Amino acid sequence: MARYDFASDNTAGMAPEALEALIAANAGFTAGYGADHVTAQAADAVRALLDVDAEVRFVASGTAANAIACATLCRPYEAMACHRDAHIATDETGAPGFFGHGLGIIGIEGEHGLIEPAGLEAVLARPDIPHHQSAAALSLTNTTEYGALYTVDALKPLIERAKAAGLGVHLDGARLANAAAAGFDLKALGPMGVDIAILGGTKAGMPLSEAIVLFDKRLARRFDARLKQGGQLPSKGRFISAPWIGMLKDRAWTRHAAHANAMAQKLAALMPFPITHPVQANAVFVKMDAERLARLHAQGRFVYRFIDGSVRFMCSWATTEAAVEELGAVLQSLA
Amino acid sequence: MARYDFASDNTAGMAPEALEALIAANAGFTAGYGADHVTAQAADAVRALLDVDAEVRFVASGTAANAIACATLCRPYEAMACHRDAHIATDETGAPGFFGHGLGIIGIEGEHGLIEPAGLEAVLARPDIPHHQSAAALSLTNTTEYGALYTVDALKPLIERAKAAGLGVHLDGARLANAAAAGFDLKALGPMGVDIAILGGTKAGMPLSEAIVLFDKRLARRFDARLKQGGQLPSKGRFISAPWIGMLKDRAWTRHAAHANAMAQKLAALMPFPITHPVQANAVFVKMDAERLARLHAQGRFVYRFIDGSVRFMCSWATTEAAVEELGAVLQSLA
Amino acid sequence: MARYDFASDNTAGMAPEALEALIAANAGFTAGYGADHVTAQAADAVRALLDVDAEVRFVASGTAANAIACATLCRPYEAMACHRDAHIATDETGAPGFFGHGLGIIGIEGEHGLIEPAGLEAVLARPDIPHHQSAAALSLTNTTEYGALYTVDALKPLIERAKAAGLGVHLDGARLANAAAAGFDLKALGPMGVDIAILGGTKAGMPLSEAIVLFDKRLARRFDARLKQGGQLPSKGRFISAPWIGMLKDRAWTRHAAHANAMAQKLAALMPFPITHPVQANAVFVKMDAERLARLHAQGRFVYRFIDGSVRFMCSWATTEAAVEELGAVLQSLA
Amino acid sequence: MARYDFASDNTAGMAPEALEALIAANAGFTAGYGADHVTAQAADAVRALLDVDAEVRFVASGTAANAIACATLCRPYEAMACHRDAHIATDETGAPGFFGHGLGIIGIEGEHGLIEPAGLEAVLARPDIPHHQSAAALSLTNTTEYGALYTVDALKPLIERAKAAGLGVHLDGARLANAAAAGFDLKALGPMGVDIAILGGTKAGMPLSEAIVLFDKRLARRFDARLKQGGQLPSKGRFISAPWIGMLKDRAWTRHAAHANAMAQKLAALMPFPITHPVQANAVFVKMDAERLARLHAQGRFVYRFIDGSVRFMCSWATTEAAVEELGAVLQSLA
Repeated sequence: MARYDFASDNTAGMAPEALEALIAANAGFTAGYGADHVTAQAADAVRALLDVDAEVRFVASGTAANAIACATLCRPYEAMACHRDAHIATDETGAPGFFGHGLGIIGIEGEHGLIEPAGLEAVLARPDIPHHQSAAALSLTNTTEYGALYTVDALKPLIERAKAAGLGVHLDGARLANAAAAGFDLKALGPMGVDIAILGGTKAGMPLSEAIVLFDKRLARRFDARLKQGGQLPSKGRFISAPWIGMLKDRAWTRHAAHANAMAQKLAALMPFPITHPVQANAVFVKMDAERLARLHAQGRFVYRFIDGSVRFMCSWATTEAAVEELGAVLQSLA
Repeated sequence: MARYDFASDNTAGMAPEALEALIAANAGFTAGYGADHVTAQAADAVRALLDVDAEVRFVASGTAANAIACATLCRPYEAMACHRDAHIATDETGAPGFFGHGLGIIGIEGEHGLIEPAGLEAVLARPDIPHHQSAAALSLTNTTEYGALYTVDALKPLIERAKAAGLGVHLDGARLANAAAAGFDLKALGPMGVDIAILGGTKAGMPLSEAIVLFDKRLARRFDARLKQGGQLPSKGRFISAPWIGMLKDRAWTRHAAHANAMAQKLAALMPFPITHPVQANAVFVKMDAERLARLHAQGRFVYRFIDGSVRFMCSWATTEAAVEELGAVLQSLA
Repeated sequence: MARYDFASDNTAGMAPEALEALIAANAGFTAGYGADHVTAQAADAVRALLDVDAEVRFVASGTAANAIACATLCRPYEAMACHRDAHIATDETGAPGFFGHGLGIIGIEGEHGLIEPAGLEAVLARPDIPHHQSAAALSLTNTTEYGALYTVDALKPLIERAKAAGLGVHLDGARLANAAAAGFDLKALGPMGVDIAILGGTKAGMPLSEAIVLFDKRLARRFDARLKQGGQLPSKGRFISAPWIGMLKDRAWTRHAAHANAMAQKLAALMPFPITHPVQANAVFVKMDAERLARLHAQGRFVYRFIDGSVRFMCSWATTEAAVEELGAVLQSLA
Repeated sequence: MARYDFASDNTAGMAPEALEALIAANAGFTAGYGADHVTAQAADAVRALLDVDAEVRFVASGTAANAIACATLCRPYEAMACHRDAHIATDETGAPGFFGHGLGIIGIEGEHGLIEPAGLEAVLARPDIPHHQSAAALSLTNTTEYGALYTVDALKPLIERAKAAGLGVHLDGARLANAAAAGFDLKALGPMGVDIAILGGTKAGMPLSEAIVLFDKRLARRFDARLKQGGQLPSKGRFISAPWIGMLKDRAWTRHAAHANAMAQKLAALMPFPITHPVQANAVFVKMDAERLARLHAQGRFVYRFIDGSVRFMCSWATTEAAVEELGAVLQSLA
């Protein structure tokens, strides 16, 4: 039978803390559409995590969360600037343009999914003429599509530069737990000037949930109407928010991510193929030819060849040491 | 503390069968984005329920499910015809127009949320000129916003008329379980000519899930891309689809709906206020003045005044006989 | 041969002043996309007409002009409030929703196309909840779809009320020339608080052109990009703007409208059918049964039955006294 | 005073034939919205030019014409494949995404704006998965952004390949007159399998008008409603269509384009800077450093540096031999 355990970090199930919180939230009747006490408690937990007084919402889809953030920061005749391989640019079927009515994407180069400062400067230097979509916001991803980490020191000047040029700032934090586990200080996000951050729950061990954090609270005006219209204001909101209560209590969210990161380190240590990006979080990217990948697939082990040509192995909260060792042995036999 | 138990059928939690299936689905790793065995099994269960060979997808939001159905059947310069008080027309913040890029809504009159055949004829008789949005599809809701039931005999001629005029047909089945429990034959939907039906899971006792059934399988072309772009292709699809396995096994879906319907009958029997719509499913609508509603609210019991001015009491799978009796006594003291 | 001379005020050709200005503008080479001296001069003429320091743009379509104004003032999850029979609501094929990505329309009642203050109050009193599209702007039309005139005194309190409630204000002035000719003081628009006005050129005798006046100059940020994306930033902008130079010189715009209004008065005086709306501008609406309308059509004279059931006769700058008399005689023979 | 005579082919005015036809069309009253005899006659002329039985519409904007064509051929979750520097990709402010609700653009490489067959193959070879926007149509531009010509023999295999793969085909013919003048057989378009072509009037000497030719007549269903909603169904349609009557009579359209092409040849012959693209139509692209361009600008002669870094000189119907000689002398003094 086919195995997906290293195919992505969304192939794992719910972590126990998420499931327990879900079950706990099931008791009794509550108000709908996010007005319930479970959602309120979850939002408080997110605010405490980030140490900010921000508006917090929970939605069922990371694609929708990112796309709604883009539509909040850009008008249709404007564009999001982001890394050329960012999820919003390459892996969301044009959702930002759909939710944002045609808003554009401007791709910036950079190693390992990290935006090159010179690339941002080039975007900001483009003449603001009516014949193309000028950048209205910068989107950053931490950790990146290639498993690299922005430190606070690396992120700060990019954000400062964008804000100084009048751009909004979006953080795609689908794997922000992995960044936090790798040392990124979550409490730096607010002071840095991020306007909207998406905190990933799904890849961190929840069934499906992402938190939208509106640091700039003015953006919250009629935001629930925006979510409702976009199909992201679930009536039984408690089942989207509850897992956050379980996962943020005693920092299970970060702890599980630290485990995933450690499993990636372990896999990297066993890896016989050349590693193509620094292993700073839960991903290991390697150079592997088509024949060897086909042989791996033939053994029922699914992993993906990525945009840059590397083959990606992902670890999650549910990855076991034994599984890593077993995979390591398989790979060594192929190499 | 405020009570929401009769405020809506989405204020209840998960039914035990849904929760058990969710837990069962949590084991191990699976493929993402609906390509997993749990989702395949749930889709089979829906096909068996309807006795059709149709394409089935599961999404997290009924608003999105309806809006995506509208966008599938209408171009932006066309319109959906539906009851003037239909959910898509009045309670989804314009989601059909958002997902459908400005597609229009044409409201048709009719008692109890049931479309008047003459109203449909009037829509079909409108000249097909470029200055307005001509109808491209008909949307029907069963049971209706006012808790009324379309029998197969009532629905069939409306659908036939629409199809004969070249329109597509969408069925909003947020409460189709209640319709089925009230005697509606689900296996009639396919032969009748419905193109897309949404089967409600959320109000029927699931955490949050709606099934999109594409009877016209040609509509399935690139439908997953459509869902992905619209933020409705969850990576951990099993947690959206699993509850259907539990709820369709041994017909828990219909059985719970039958209970909700019976609770509404019981409440109707105890109701001291004039009932404004036939009680055929899980809703009781009554005439109640502002002062009495305010007194009810003051007791912490939330219910809503509806579009037509009636006050709505909703029962669900979780409504107990004792709660109905208690509410009956409260209402009698107010009357 | 069919005659369209009373079918609409857009069935007439160009007035001589418009044509002359068009020919004059043809000389030589100019910058494109509205950056030419002809467009600059035309914009100055509009500013002088209204006595305001506003941003002015010229576009080829009144439908687009209105829809772009709506999209500028409303987000997709918000709505325009307007008269229920306003052009944006009934006669533009959903263009506001298309340009505004699903923005809603809230229709307000009122005699003769004039918004009833109580209707506006009802809109403003609606709870601002996420389940429907709350009003973000008010759209007014002068003269109205039914040829009625808002005086400054009638318009002012509506605008004040809307602004006090935080709404933006759009004026559809497709027939603002007729309003001006009927005594409406154009210089009152700015101080009143209108945010965006569309001044009609097409119906006033130009080939095709509408002026967008942005009284609130903050709305002009990247407005040319908005126009370009919406297909309304013509490369040879001079041919859209030039007619305004000819028509605003010596007030030909108002003078021609005054003639059209006078022709409507003359027609009203000869009219044997009951007049259904006050004749205050260039339209005469009458009660006429289907048989008589068919006989009129059979004579090749096209006029339209309107939304309210009346039959509409429109006069324009090109309507002659002789044509009115001839039509009067025809109608008398039918009555 | 600044000169724009070589800045673009849209800086010229109306050719005499266009103006005369415009004046001729001004007589009397006509039906609105393209139902007039002038528009019918112009459509016949376009059909005769292409020797096809196609649906023809006239709109005021090339950007809108292209974007509407894209939206007709692609759903929002699909993409247009086109040259990476095509006008729809680089110079229309995201209009295809706006009119097409987020539809994507896939850029293909190729010299001189001509699509490389291998690039098209690569697009067609992409897996049709729901995580990105798969190509639904191919857009071709003749002559290209760089003034290069597709011969019939070059275009045919690209179209055949696209059609074989199930894609629709759009032709951006903003400069199709120049292609025709350079030998391209317009009567080959229909048999080749083009679905929608835009024929440029504006750059060919009209005030502003583009013809949309629907070779696949099924696409014409409710197309006028589509145009109306998109702000491209002008009420006084005759003023958009009339110039085509004048310009297609005695082939003024092609004759003027031939003159523009000849002027480009003459300029190329005098050009002291290295020419970067073959001069096959009315454009001359050259390599010129920043300092020399600045000096040219300082003399009030505006020309643009293009996407590929070349500086572009455009000729039009109105370019005179004397002007070319004068420019040649200026350039030689700079070189």
